[in-house]
Order: sequence, then C-alpha cells, then structure tokens
Amino acid sequence: MTLPYALAIHGGAGVMPRASMTPEFSKECRAALKRAVAAGEDVLHRGGAALDAAIESVNVLEDEPLFNAGRGAVFTTDVTHEMDAAVMDGASRRAGAVAGIFGPRNPVTLARAVMERTDHVLLIGSGALRLARDAGLPFEEPPYFYTERRRRALEEALALRANGQTIDDPALRHGTVGAVARDRSGNLAAATSTGGVTGKLPGRVGDTPVIGAGTFADNRSCAVSATGDGEAFIRLCVAHEIDARVRLAGQTLEQAAAGVVMDDLTRIGGSGGVIAVDARGNVTTPFNCEGMYRGWVVEGDTASVAIYHDE
Amino acid sequence: MTLPYALAIHGGAGVMPRASMTPEFSKECRAALKRAVAAGEDVLHRGGAALDAAIESVNVLEDEPLFNAGRGAVFTTDVTHEMDAAVMDGASRRAGAVAGIFGPRNPVTLARAVMERTDHVLLIGSGALRLARDAGLPFEEPPYFYTERRRRALEEALALRANGQTIDDPALRHGTVGAVARDRSGNLAAATSTGGVTGKLPGRVGDTPVIGAGTFADNRSCAVSATGDGEAFIRLCVAHEIDARVRLAGQTLEQAAAGVVMDDLTRIGGSGGVIAVDARGNVTTPFNCEGMYRGWVVEGDTASVAIYHDE
Repeated sequence: MTLPYALAIHGGAGVMPRASMTPEFSKECRAALKRAVAAGEDVLHRGGAALDAAIESVNVLEDEPLFNAGRGAVFTTDVTHEMDAAVMDGASRRAGAVAGIFGPRNPVTLARAVMERTDHVLLIGSGALRLARDAGLPFEEPPYFYTERRRRALEEALALRANGQTIDDPALRHGTVGAVARDRSGNLAAATSTGGVTGKLPGRVGDTPVIGAGTFADNRSCAVSATGDGEAFIRLCVAHEIDARVRLAGQTLEQAAAGVVMDDLTRIGGSGGVIAVDARGNVTTPFNCEGMYRGWVVEGDTASVAIYHDE
Repeated sequence: MTLPYALAIHGGAGVMPRASMTPEFSKECRAALKRAVAAGEDVLHRGGAALDAAIESVNVLEDEPLFNAGRGAVFTTDVTHEMDAAVMDGASRRAGAVAGIFGPRNPVTLARAVMERTDHVLLIGSGALRLARDAGLPFEEPPYFYTERRRRALEEALALRANGQTIDDPALRHGTVGAVARDRSGNLAAATSTGGVTGKLPGRVGDTPVIGAGTFADNRSCAVSATGDGEAFIRLCVAHEIDARVRLAGQTLEQAAAGVVMDDLTRIGGSGGVIAVDARGNVTTPFNCEGMYRGWVVEGDTASVAIYHDE
C-alpha cells in the first residue's frame, strides 16, 4: 500500500514588510516558490524518494537569486560568501552537512555527498571543497553568486552597524531555503541551505548545518527545516526538540512545532519559523515574524504558496 | 539554601584495551584525571559557577598531552591539528563553540569567548582565530601541540587504511575531553574539547561543537558532554536526546543516558559514552566500549576516577 506524499518548502522567514512589498516582487517570489514545489512534487509523483524530492526543491531555490542560498547568497563583512547546507534521511537517520564553503553551485548537493561518499556528517571549509572536486560537482565563479540587492544590503548593514543599529528589514538581514518531504513509502527527509546573515563575521555558522537545530529527519516522528535567527535555533535545538515532542511527549506535529516556534523561540528573543512534515503526511509551517516564504503540497491537492500569516 | 555541588569529567571513551594497558600509563592517566576533577571542584568549593568549574577542568585536560584536546591533539591526514570545542550554560541556555581551529592553547576558552563576546554560537576556522586574537587569548606554536604518540598513531592509521583496515586501538583513534557541573546555586554547565579523530579528513567536524550532539546544558534537566564516534552522536543528537528524555518523558538521568548510549548508540554501530549531571546533582557516566577515562565528585564525598567498567 502506498501513502499519499507530502512536501513543504521555505525560502526564508523574516520577509519584506508588507507595507514595502511590491506586487512585482511578490509575484516573482511566489512564482519561484511554485517552481520549487513543482520540482520536488515531480520527484514524489514519479514514486521517487523523499530525500531526492527535498534536494530537488532546494536546488531550485539555490539557483534562484531571490533567496539567500547558492546564487543570491548574502555577503559577510569581508564581502565574501560563506554557505552552509545540510540533508538528513529519516529512514536511516544518516545526515550530511557543510559549513563555510564557497564555490559549489549547489551546497545542498555537497551536503548529500558528505552523507553518501564519506564516513563523516559535517565537513567545513577547504576540506569540504576537496570533496566537492572529488565528487565532480559543478563550481561557479564569484559573479554567478553576486546580486546587486545583497551587495546593497551589506552596505546598509555596515552603515547602520557603525551607528549601533541593525538592518530593520529581516528579509535583507537573513534568509534560508529548505524542504521537507514524505514519500509514498513513508520515508521522511529534510534539506536546508543558506548564505547565512548579511554582514556576518567570516567563520560564523548558523543553525542550517547543525543537525538537530536547523535540519532533522526521523521516520518515527517528523522532518524539519528551519529558518531565522540561527543562534537561537541552535540554543533550543529546534528541529530535534520538535521531533522529541512528537516522539516522546505525544504531541501532534502542529502542537510541537507551534510550541517551539511561537512560545520557546519567542521567549528567548529569536525570530523565524520552520516547515515540518510528520510520518502521517501532516504539514505545518509556523513562524513568529511577519512572514515566511513557503509552499506545500499533499498528494491529491493542488500546491499552495504563501508569504504572510493570513493566507 | 545552597545545594551540594557535583562535577564529572571525561578524558575520552575508547581507552587502551586492558590487556595492553601498562601500570605506568594507567597511573599517569588517573593522576591527570584527579588533577582535572580537583581544578573544577576547587571552583565549586569556593562557591564558583558551574560554567567556570567545567571550563577549569577542561583547561587542565587540554593542557595534558595524554588526552586528545589542546596539547596532545591527534593529527589529520595532512599532519595538521584541527580542534573543536563548545561550552553551554544551563541557566541562560547560551552556548559558544568553535570548529577547525589551530593555535589557541585552550580551544574551550575560545568557545567561551564566542558565547560571551559575540552574538554568535558557532565560529569556524580563521574567523574563530580572529576572535581569539581580539580577545587576547594565548596562542602556541606547532611544537607545543606535537606528541610522538599521536604522530605514530597517524602513521599507523594511514598504513592500515592503505590496506582497507582501521586502527584497532580506539584510544589512538579518537578521544575527547569534557566536564559537566552543577554549582551550589543549582546552575548546570557543560564544556567539551577535542582534536577529533586520528587521520581525519581536514575539515571534518565531529559532535563536540554541535550543540545538542556532544555538548548541552539546561537547568531544567541536565548537562551532558559526550565522547566517541562523533558522527553517530550527531545523528542521534545524543546530548539533547538525554535532556529531552529527562524533561519530556519523565526518565531519570541514569535511565535517559543509559538508554541513549547503551541502546540507541549501540544499535547504529556507534561507540562511546557521556558524562551527565542533573538538576538534583545526580551524576552518571555510561559508555558502551571497553573504557572511558572519567572522574567525578559530589560535595561531601571524596573524588573518584576510573577507566574500565568494573571500578
């Protein structure tokens, strides 16, 4: 017997405030989110694996300059890019992650190579790039990753910082892309990729490649991909905490995810959200900030995309 | 009202097999463990904080060439050292961690600087070293960290690997040092530091700096520091899973730690152990391999050190 598949994606929490969102930008973002959902759904519809579907969706978002991952990644204070990514397979609970890398076109694909081609889970910096070359993954030159929008965001962030302020548009400050999926065999998977935070210190790593914080999957409970203030997500082990509440405390996926994001995260001053899917194919996408670029589909229904709370 | 303090330390799981352990080496190790317990206990006895005590114990173990952290760290395939460390304060649930660093004498002190001097939790590579210099932390040259024993272990590991084998003495393969403490105010803290795995790929990061995997502390439940096959600890989120079982499933610290280490870790083929202390000052030190260098003390009792199971 096959189960209906389910997929959810995000293009980052902390979106442009509604007041300054233009119809054109909103339309562009929604179209990109739709393409990402469609790419993952296509894999699931053909009977493919949750892991393949999640990675396929993330690849689309990484290739899309609108979102802060792969092409379109934010800049560090050194005007460089440093990217992090992770994948986790809920069936085997194997995982792969990379941090502080620059060059590979699709960081999430390199995270998968760590999982599949090494005995390790987390590789950083030049060691990770060595694997990317050994695995024959495509690299890109700096102009590929450059976007005028992120460059301006860095200038703005540095200027504000000089006055002791922070950039007020969370969409320019950070962002992450991710996907979670359940396939027809009931396997779960999560994948996440990010350029980090605009104007971050070189070497800063957020929650994305920290298994249990920004990325987690376990067939017994759920798959989670997070986006937001990475440090807060690490301190709370957000993704694994949601898993633990489902698995150990008997909470529904919706209760667990909402409790961690709306209550615990808010309490420590963290902003952001998660997408999650459980073993039954329930999908939830809570966030405690103005918006979260997101999309989802459950087999038999049409796909949805949304940015703000009331949609 | 003050509570009795409690402290536990480890110098790594996967010790020299009993058959090849010499009385001299055993004596040296036990003396070093005693010094590390005494250093942390001294802080707690004077009414100091759990975080200070845990870091003080780890500093002693890092300075000790017998253990794989700081001085005495293992070598990568490139004959370099790459160190990882983390601290977490159970009262605030703030954390700091570093990965892939070489130079600072005490990596765990740099992890603390990340927590206290930046908005970040995890810094890697040269970005972390920049902070170490800004913070004025002491650096050492390569000869300080060099030990003949670890150099031979690398040769042996590479020779065996060329024949498709792995080094059979787990004490030479890996190792980690760590401490957990509860102070008289009831605050918990954890600190961990490691050189990683002999013959690791440059860039490989294990569980030590992954908050929730190798290091975790929460005043509501427990503080945990882990040692062993880092990849398995990351996949299971070992430290946070123990915390979750105490906090969400009503297990005792001993049940939770034993369940994760003896059952779950063993099931996925992982080897190692943890030290943990809970909010009531209970201490547990389960491991699923031949031995774990460890020591502990509870206020009013004399300190103990041990290596194998039956002691």
